[in-house]
Amino acid sequence: MSAMKPNYPENSWWVAAVGEEVTRTPLGRWFLDRPVVLYRTEAGEVVALEDRCPHRWAPLSRGCLVGDDIMCPYHGFRFDATGTCTKIPTQQTIPAMARVKTHAVREDGPFVWIWMGDPARAQVTPLPELPFLSGPGWNTMRGYMPVKANYMLIQENVLDLTHFGFLHADTLEQKGWEGGDSEVTVADGTVGYRKQMRQEPVASFLGIPDGIGYGQKADRVDWGHFVSPAVHHAGVDIVDPRPGREARTLRFQITHLTTPESPGRTHYWYALGHDYGEYTPERCAELTDLIVATFTQDKDVLEAVQDVIERDARHADSVEVSVTADRPALQARRILRAMLESEQGRTP
Amino acid sequence: MSAMKPNYPENSWWVAAVGEEVTRTPLGRWFLDRPVVLYRTEAGEVVALEDRCPHRWAPLSRGCLVGDDIMCPYHGFRFDATGTCTKIPTQQTIPAMARVKTHAVREDGPFVWIWMGDPARAQVTPLPELPFLSGPGWNTMRGYMPVKANYMLIQENVLDLTHFGFLHADTLEQKGWEGGDSEVTVADGTVGYRKQMRQEPVASFLGIPDGIGYGQKADRVDWGHFVSPAVHHAGVDIVDPRPGREARTLRFQITHLTTPESPGRTHYWYALGHDYGEYTPERCAELTDLIVATFTQDKDVLEAVQDVIERDARHADSVEVSVTADRPALQARRILRAMLESEQGRTP
Amino acid sequence: MSAMKPNYPENSWWVAAVGEEVTRTPLGRWFLDRPVVLYRTEAGEVVALEDRCPHRWAPLSRGCLVGDDIMCPYHGFRFDATGTCTKIPTQQTIPAMARVKTHAVREDGPFVWIWMGDPARAQVTPLPELPFLSGPGWNTMRGYMPVKANYMLIQENVLDLTHFGFLHADTLEQKGWEGGDSEVTVADGTVGYRKQMRQEPVASFLGIPDGIGYGQKADRVDWGHFVSPAVHHAGVDIVDPRPGREARTLRFQITHLTTPESPGRTHYWYALGHDYGEYTPERCAELTDLIVATFTQDKDVLEAVQDVIERDARHADSVEVSVTADRPALQARRILRAMLESEQGRTP
Repeated sequence: MSAMKPNYPENSWWVAAVGEEVTRTPLGRWFLDRPVVLYRTEAGEVVALEDRCPHRWAPLSRGCLVGDDIMCPYHGFRFDATGTCTKIPTQQTIPAMARVKTHAVREDGPFVWIWMGDPARAQVTPLPELPFLSGPGWNTMRGYMPVKANYMLIQENVLDLTHFGFLHADTLEQKGWEGGDSEVTVADGTVGYRKQMRQEPVASFLGIPDGIGYGQKADRVDWGHFVSPAVHHAGVDIVDPRPGREARTLRFQITHLTTPESPGRTHYWYALGHDYGEYTPERCAELTDLIVATFTQDKDVLEAVQDVIERDARHADSVEVSVTADRPALQARRILRAMLESEQGRTP
Repeated sequence: MSAMKPNYPENSWWVAAVGEEVTRTPLGRWFLDRPVVLYRTEAGEVVALEDRCPHRWAPLSRGCLVGDDIMCPYHGFRFDATGTCTKIPTQQTIPAMARVKTHAVREDGPFVWIWMGDPARAQVTPLPELPFLSGPGWNTMRGYMPVKANYMLIQENVLDLTHFGFLHADTLEQKGWEGGDSEVTVADGTVGYRKQMRQEPVASFLGIPDGIGYGQKADRVDWGHFVSPAVHHAGVDIVDPRPGREARTLRFQITHLTTPESPGRTHYWYALGHDYGEYTPERCAELTDLIVATFTQDKDVLEAVQDVIERDARHADSVEVSVTADRPALQARRILRAMLESEQGRTP
Repeated sequence: MSAMKPNYPENSWWVAAVGEEVTRTPLGRWFLDRPVVLYRTEAGEVVALEDRCPHRWAPLSRGCLVGDDIMCPYHGFRFDATGTCTKIPTQQTIPAMARVKTHAVREDGPFVWIWMGDPARAQVTPLPELPFLSGPGWNTMRGYMPVKANYMLIQENVLDLTHFGFLHADTLEQKGWEGGDSEVTVADGTVGYRKQMRQEPVASFLGIPDGIGYGQKADRVDWGHFVSPAVHHAGVDIVDPRPGREARTLRFQITHLTTPESPGRTHYWYALGHDYGEYTPERCAELTDLIVATFTQDKDVLEAVQDVIERDARHADSVEVSVTADRPALQARRILRAMLESEQGRTP
């Protein structure tokens, strides 16, 4: 895989920010090699505009808001939430070309999503659903990490959990991925895996808070879905190992949100939750440390892979060797390829 | 505008240094993507040579002077002020090819100017005139700032002062640029603007020293000339607002000197002066702070624009929207384009 | 010379490491634009493998050893010292393609050598001989410096010692290179120089330890050989200047080992020795300081040359002027060109 060329579909919902980052102070951020400014109207709606004044290309995000309009820091041109220029300080006439592209955005739960491609398709494409993030009975937490690697390296990372036993041997301690195959399901442009584990020890990130001893054995199912190039949603369903409670399923879920900044850089958000136990401050601190340590292991190895991709003189001629455990990732590549091919037919 | 390709004419006088920077210790600096070494002969004349020994390409500026010759730090080859090799330590014969290009230079007032193109044309091209810098009755000061942006972004910045009310609203406080148009004059490969202001408050950088109260109103004319791609010369002519002194014009002038180091980097010098008031140490410190704060605002926004130009995936296809206030800048682009086209006919 | 394109032959022995750097903890390093991992088997043999897992391109050097195999840090694939995959944790079948390239390596004296090209040719190509490094009666020391310049700039530096009188005037103080020519010998794809010096002062790095006063005069011969693009071997043979000892030749030798990391970066090792005197701790510290100071002068000027090569807009059209003292270096270029041409016929 050469990660140097853009390999991201424009027609997809991508996470742009956490809601609380978007305020009355404009926020500039790059997505898919393009600059975007995010802000909130007086009524609290999120607006996403091209972050480049059409006049002399200054980033609007360095300007400020005037009501619901954003004012360019350089010559004071103003644009409303539809991208239309509403004021040129030095003249009455506003050229028809004086507008910035607007991007469809939606706010849902903690995240703000953006659509960089055809707006008509945004309207008919539902947001990925992440019910655990707002559902009752869930404890949740989230984080962000910039990663200097192509976003698909992260997606493929979470589609093949056989790396748990190696890369995360000293952090996650999630057992059971070494042997046997998982079921792979392909449907509707997504791919999923599912793996039944029998009497494996419950890792600390799953079990301790609920009175289940560290390393106690339980049956569980690990599953995950490549929902889109932007979203991987995964979970662990544990049969409560305590006597008399077998009817209850303890659920852990996590979502990995990958938004390309450029071919070699990714905005990476994650959110996770448990529908059992309690997030005491100590538990939160402990979980945060564990998750950050784990994802830093992923980040480090993926950035090293990206470095090899970029520096190795032979990379264009090289192939990868894939194995059975790569079936979900290979399927995700196929889905992505189809998305990219269908976009090449678009009028730009 | 794509600033990634060289867009600088070679046949132009460019500022290379402030005179006092050029001494008996060689000074290496890049202009127009080429290395130049500057030094002074024993008689005090400025010499500018290609800063690349023709033998094995070591920068001569790392060597030292032997009389009026410069000696390469690597193998001791020497070159005189005409670029001719005068000594090869290991042999008597000096190959005819053993010479470095010499550049025409002229010292005038505080600045040393360089001509990177055809020497014959240098001889018949007068230096830009900046009489205020050496004229009697002027207080003057100057500064330098490296800017990571194409030099024409700076030139266009100072050809459209309608940015004063926005980018410099909290620094310069120079009023009157919001409304109405300026007169634009095109002649002899230069473009100028002129704008009459009626009873506008006098900004602090213009008025305070002369006993004119901060914010006192006065008539004034703001004017500027794109003298060449290297020089913008501007001024403010103020009708003294004090009773009985209306016959006197108080003059402020400033010159912006932009020398491309490469397409994305510019050596930027400025010099300014007042023909009234007095530069006390306090006044100098205050003015310096104000000017540095103001030009840092320009530098920051122009470097952000340069970043957009370089990173934005769509930049080749994009257009800018120009307005009436851009007439001087658009005219400057036309002049530059003609200069560049005329140079393409040159034998290299 | 344009140093931007690869100009290194693959079919050559290059120094990869000092033996003691290669241990049971894998060592990752780039050579000739390719990643290599070095480690030692339980029996102490050095192994060099492609540092890129064929599965998902993680650097194996971030993994660890299991017996004589190296285990990928990402998904736990293992490879033996022949590059063959010996274990895929999730399946029994190992695809035939699952292997990494292995590089021939040899350990000789303090250095580990690597062959990046055709293994068949490695077998019939002897290592460069550096007998002084392991011979009896020699005091030796060595060092390493990363240099941001093409490796041939270093090779050419040591093929023309007329730079001693200039670049190292205040460090080495090795006299006699200013005047007259050296003999140049070309044979068997190598080039050598030899220069007889008469009654020149003995520089401090040569003489002080042996009771020869600083600056005392002696006859000596300076000589050097471009053994290969990887190795320059040089020496000084001094006629003992003390009365009655003229029959003895005091020998100093030095070898310069240049291994390209990429066209613009070089691993540079050096080793030197004297067959007289004694390396007391004081003498070692003094020599180290002198050698580091001297080679830093070379590094600085060569990195400046590299910068000119990379930045100067005209470099493709430019020529170098060569003189008599460049005969050995020009001959080395010819040898290199022949090596590169013969490799282009190789099937890749």
